[in-house]
Amino acid sequence: MLSRLNILQCHVTSQPAPENLLDKYRKMSTIDQKLMDDIDYLGYKNITEMFEAPLKSDPVFVKETHEELNREQDREAAVMKMKAMYNHLSPYFFEDMNRYEEVFTDPIKFNALAIPLYMYNQGVSTKYTVNLVLFYMTVLNLGTAQHEKWKESISTGRDLGCFALTELSHGSNVRGIQTTATYDQERDEFIINTPNDVAMKFWIGGASKSATVSAVFANLIIGDKNEGPHVFIVPLRDKKTYNVLPGIIIGDCGKKVGQDNIDNGFILFNNFRIPRENMLNKMSNVTREGKFETKIPNPDHRLALILGGISQGRILIIGFSPRIIGYGLKIALRFAAMRRQFGKPGDKEEIPLIEYPLHQYRLFPYLANIFAFKLASNEIYYNWNEISKDLFDTKAQQSIGELHATISSLKAIHSWTAMRALQECREACGGLGYSYYSKLGILRANWDVQQTWEGDNNVLLQQTAKYLLDVIQAKFKGKELKTRWQQWVSSEPVEGAQNESKTDEEFLQDDNLLKVFYHRSNLLLQRSAMKMAGKVSDKTVHPLDAWNDTQVFNLHHLAKSYGELFGVMQFHKFIQKLKSGEIKTNADTVEAMTLLFQLHCLTRIEADLGTFRDGDYLTSEHGDLIKQTILKLLGQVKRHAIALVETFYPSEELFDSMIAPGNGDLYGSIINRIYYSKDAFGKIKNWDQCLSPVATAPEATTGKSKQ
Amino acid sequence: MLSRLNILQCHVTSQPAPENLLDKYRKMSTIDQKLMDDIDYLGYKNITEMFEAPLKSDPVFVKETHEELNREQDREAAVMKMKAMYNHLSPYFFEDMNRYEEVFTDPIKFNALAIPLYMYNQGVSTKYTVNLVLFYMTVLNLGTAQHEKWKESISTGRDLGCFALTELSHGSNVRGIQTTATYDQERDEFIINTPNDVAMKFWIGGASKSATVSAVFANLIIGDKNEGPHVFIVPLRDKKTYNVLPGIIIGDCGKKVGQDNIDNGFILFNNFRIPRENMLNKMSNVTREGKFETKIPNPDHRLALILGGISQGRILIIGFSPRIIGYGLKIALRFAAMRRQFGKPGDKEEIPLIEYPLHQYRLFPYLANIFAFKLASNEIYYNWNEISKDLFDTKAQQSIGELHATISSLKAIHSWTAMRALQECREACGGLGYSYYSKLGILRANWDVQQTWEGDNNVLLQQTAKYLLDVIQAKFKGKELKTRWQQWVSSEPVEGAQNESKTDEEFLQDDNLLKVFYHRSNLLLQRSAMKMAGKVSDKTVHPLDAWNDTQVFNLHHLAKSYGELFGVMQFHKFIQKLKSGEIKTNADTVEAMTLLFQLHCLTRIEADLGTFRDGDYLTSEHGDLIKQTILKLLGQVKRHAIALVETFYPSEELFDSMIAPGNGDLYGSIINRIYYSKDAFGKIKNWDQCLSPVATAPEATTGKSKQ
Repeated sequence: MLSRLNILQCHVTSQPAPENLLDKYRKMSTIDQKLMDDIDYLGYKNITEMFEAPLKSDPVFVKETHEELNREQDREAAVMKMKAMYNHLSPYFFEDMNRYEEVFTDPIKFNALAIPLYMYNQGVSTKYTVNLVLFYMTVLNLGTAQHEKWKESISTGRDLGCFALTELSHGSNVRGIQTTATYDQERDEFIINTPNDVAMKFWIGGASKSATVSAVFANLIIGDKNEGPHVFIVPLRDKKTYNVLPGIIIGDCGKKVGQDNIDNGFILFNNFRIPRENMLNKMSNVTREGKFETKIPNPDHRLALILGGISQGRILIIGFSPRIIGYGLKIALRFAAMRRQFGKPGDKEEIPLIEYPLHQYRLFPYLANIFAFKLASNEIYYNWNEISKDLFDTKAQQSIGELHATISSLKAIHSWTAMRALQECREACGGLGYSYYSKLGILRANWDVQQTWEGDNNVLLQQTAKYLLDVIQAKFKGKELKTRWQQWVSSEPVEGAQNESKTDEEFLQDDNLLKVFYHRSNLLLQRSAMKMAGKVSDKTVHPLDAWNDTQVFNLHHLAKSYGELFGVMQFHKFIQKLKSGEIKTNADTVEAMTLLFQLHCLTRIEADLGTFRDGDYLTSEHGDLIKQTILKLLGQVKRHAIALVETFYPSEELFDSMIAPGNGDLYGSIINRIYYSKDAFGKIKNWDQCLSPVATAPEATTGKSKQ
Repeated sequence: MLSRLNILQCHVTSQPAPENLLDKYRKMSTIDQKLMDDIDYLGYKNITEMFEAPLKSDPVFVKETHEELNREQDREAAVMKMKAMYNHLSPYFFEDMNRYEEVFTDPIKFNALAIPLYMYNQGVSTKYTVNLVLFYMTVLNLGTAQHEKWKESISTGRDLGCFALTELSHGSNVRGIQTTATYDQERDEFIINTPNDVAMKFWIGGASKSATVSAVFANLIIGDKNEGPHVFIVPLRDKKTYNVLPGIIIGDCGKKVGQDNIDNGFILFNNFRIPRENMLNKMSNVTREGKFETKIPNPDHRLALILGGISQGRILIIGFSPRIIGYGLKIALRFAAMRRQFGKPGDKEEIPLIEYPLHQYRLFPYLANIFAFKLASNEIYYNWNEISKDLFDTKAQQSIGELHATISSLKAIHSWTAMRALQECREACGGLGYSYYSKLGILRANWDVQQTWEGDNNVLLQQTAKYLLDVIQAKFKGKELKTRWQQWVSSEPVEGAQNESKTDEEFLQDDNLLKVFYHRSNLLLQRSAMKMAGKVSDKTVHPLDAWNDTQVFNLHHLAKSYGELFGVMQFHKFIQKLKSGEIKTNADTVEAMTLLFQLHCLTRIEADLGTFRDGDYLTSEHGDLIKQTILKLLGQVKRHAIALVETFYPSEELFDSMIAPGNGDLYGSIINRIYYSKDAFGKIKNWDQCLSPVATAPEATTGKSKQ
């Protein structure tokens, strides 16, 4: 092989060093890194840097595109990486054990913590999060003093935890889980049981091969009474031998489309016994005498609170959507700056892809999305703690409901957009985007699951719609709900209204753009409320049927529109602060942000122009104006595009894509990578069979039976 | 493990046999299988069956979701499968060697041939196609009697061929390739050379490990003159040892996002010599004396003809898009019929997903797309032979141009839609859609490449736009181009026109729906022409800049709209034949097709309502009508949905998805599959390190340098 490389190196004529296009585009604008960091880390970049350091220093953290492991190896590696991260950080946490709680319960800090591992390898990050957040936080949120030992064993690495909620036949509808925890007063134990095969716990991350203990959701049965789902700590394996405990069956859910380094498993319990103390009993408790006591008498409300812990997973998705888009765009836009294709006849050089308006139109709107999404998630981060500290306070339920509804919509909108963005990035890099080493395919395959886990997007949007209906119905009844973000909701009919702007300039003003989004959400909300009312007034129609029949074009669309509106609201607020000087930065950054705000609003309007034109709220001329303005904006954003993606995480040392090297040498990077990739040279192993003389196969095409 | 399974089997309470929902939905409608077959196989189902038989009988054809191989094994397996298919079919081809030509040159027969292997495993099918179609057909189309030996060696399996067109720095812009073939008159040879490293042939399917010979595109150099790209047969490996020949460097392009069982490679030629006879010289020739002769003096036209062979790959994509959507939908809709989630309080059973209007809205429009796309591809199949027989006839260039433009648009529209459909199918199956064994992830990852190979979709659409501009410009000049499908093009201004229907019924009539699509394409065509004319009239603007600046919202949109229009035209024609009785079938089938035609038209209009409302061609009330009608249609289509997908390829024996078993036993299928999947039970190999006591890692978070 080496001799071949030598031949090659002697043989190819070296070309004159090409112009460093990446540098050229980079230097077109100066984006304020400090402001970008403020948006990204909210003041906790030090936490990010601390969690990033091991990724740079410890050789176990091989770059993701450089690893080509089979499933088994991949899972072993994931455990070792999780463990390594754990070990590197233990001094920080062990110095003050309250830091676990401090960092994991505050989404601002948790965001800063999660960035490095998440952007390094989504599967490893998930593994870390399932163990330390889902399991640990469940014990923290729902347990009492008697469960301290589990928190300790997880935080000191003497247990690996998993989170056993979903079952084979109940994924979205977790209310319908069938696993039982029956209290046996005689022995003061709970009997955990899987009543039938479809009630097996399914998709449980970490369960199949590595977790030693699990937080199991099961219906609490006392005597004849089912008190609904509660959470129980159930040990799974003998920690000395790692064998599964008798009375439990654990297996693997098999190969997945992505995040295949997580050992998702299924669990069946065969009347497995645990001590009474293993019930997480902060909210509800069973006494020695078998008496059920609860602070939250309403079972629906109780379940909502028990499931509250998942919300933290959702806000992580909300925040990581723009960051993963940022990673994809950093790849695709760097590539677009370096890759030339086609040109004017007679010109010496072809034209870089980034110069093509169509290419800009494919990618720049996602650059705009990023800021709307980051600002939206920051708004959630900021409000989370204040609202969620009152989790068990019934008076705080309106705030919690609003937060939950908002998170539900954002989780759906952001995760879907990220998926589309990654797909567009991959296509925008052509065939080279199809290389595993571009990382785009990896990002996409791993990201894909975000759309259906932690609450299926389409199901979550129904929860948003339900909340918004409550808001307008209260308003219709003259009773205002206390809200934080619903100042846009109007009970004045908007059907038939026209946008009030009189000139193009007026239309394009920030406040008017915001109003346009207000209008759409009000229109959809009022229509949905009316349609629901109409259907429900027919007593023969079941409310659930009315609900389901009002989804398409109405409630579903409403809930999506709200998520978009929320991002526009936060982006708008940010732009006003920039313009007023409340946030100080340089002129390039103000320009870039202002352009992106407009681009975000206008491309979102354009994508749903049919709805905005409903009842002629916008006119055909508005449509033209929007399109012309988008074209103008694309040309203006170009100058900032590369400078912007260069501010995104990760920096060069951890950045991992063959087709987007930071030094601008696109082809050098590709050649260097593929020459040294696995099995780069040689012949296929079964080469001696490749040209075997064609067999006569007289029977072959008849129905010889197959094994 | 077995004892565990026994425990399980003893332990879980068997549930009462659940209702066979799949059967229930299946029986709701009777779809005419014969008509569906006519659409799918165009009278050549016998060819499909012949190529399908080995997949059923030969154990080498393991179902795709049942194989979990590493890259190397996967590639070996792909060679063996290709070879097996080859062997099984050799009796058929060897009986009459003209059959190669007959089957491969007729897209109707080739479609029938390709279905089984393509739907079995896209990578294996690609491998087969590269060898037997791309290589063989290139020799057939561009070679002469002196190249018979290559056709023979490929068809008898004594060579494996590849198609070396694209280079590292030239993918879309193949006109820019830099490889040279210099005529050496003294030795009567061509010298094939890679002038610099970015000119290496790149992404060449089959090249890295298995191909022995390649069709190389290189600029023909005679003396000082570059006669542009021509094709040369270049042997790559010593067939006795399978070593790469001296003077050639071949390596692997590395891991890919999908179709990773194809050994895509790069090739560098170091002044490698081939005999003069290896130039494919049907169109152009170099004499012994070094004189260049050509039948096609225009080099652009010549290149277009040389590249014509790729068009066949494109029509394969056009035809396989609806079939791959069909596979995905067969999975997702069967799943939707069997999977229950949520229900009315108090009801014993939850509701199957297929009953939810939102779920219907997510999937049924793709069911409608399938028929538009199949009928569109059939129209291309039918016309291909008649048009392409005149390939070298300059008088036939108008027809060829139209065919090429239409294929370009359809390839883009169909392949994109298939990608979106597969993504929606995966999401519609929730977490279970993320299982590798659902096959949805495999279909998607393999399909993804279709959007950027065989001509990048966004580049192809420019070729469509170019043709359409020529048509309208000719019309404006009063000179009608002879066209086959452009009767919709109007030189009467349509800007500001309103749809002529007076009532809802009139609006929804088939002819009116077709007119709505005519209108959009005319609007975009006239606007694009006007914008181009406006820009070009400014002499300071380079025509290429004018062209690029007119893409977004105009030419690009126009080209996409034409592809959609084409499908609607073919679907419309088909529906008229059904209604008139020209095509005879049963009442259910007529109803289903009629509903799907409406659903297809209305959902496509709804998706781009902003444009249809431009200039108020459609009103806000039309928008309402469209939405209400879609909702009604979804409810009506439900009855036919499962019966329809049941008619799609493949039938049960080859159908491969854990989450969509034909016997209706969803959970039985899942449990059975995962219990017997690889490494289903046990512990992680490095389990003894999982709980290792947490190390103190004092230096870890500082900048220790990494290897």
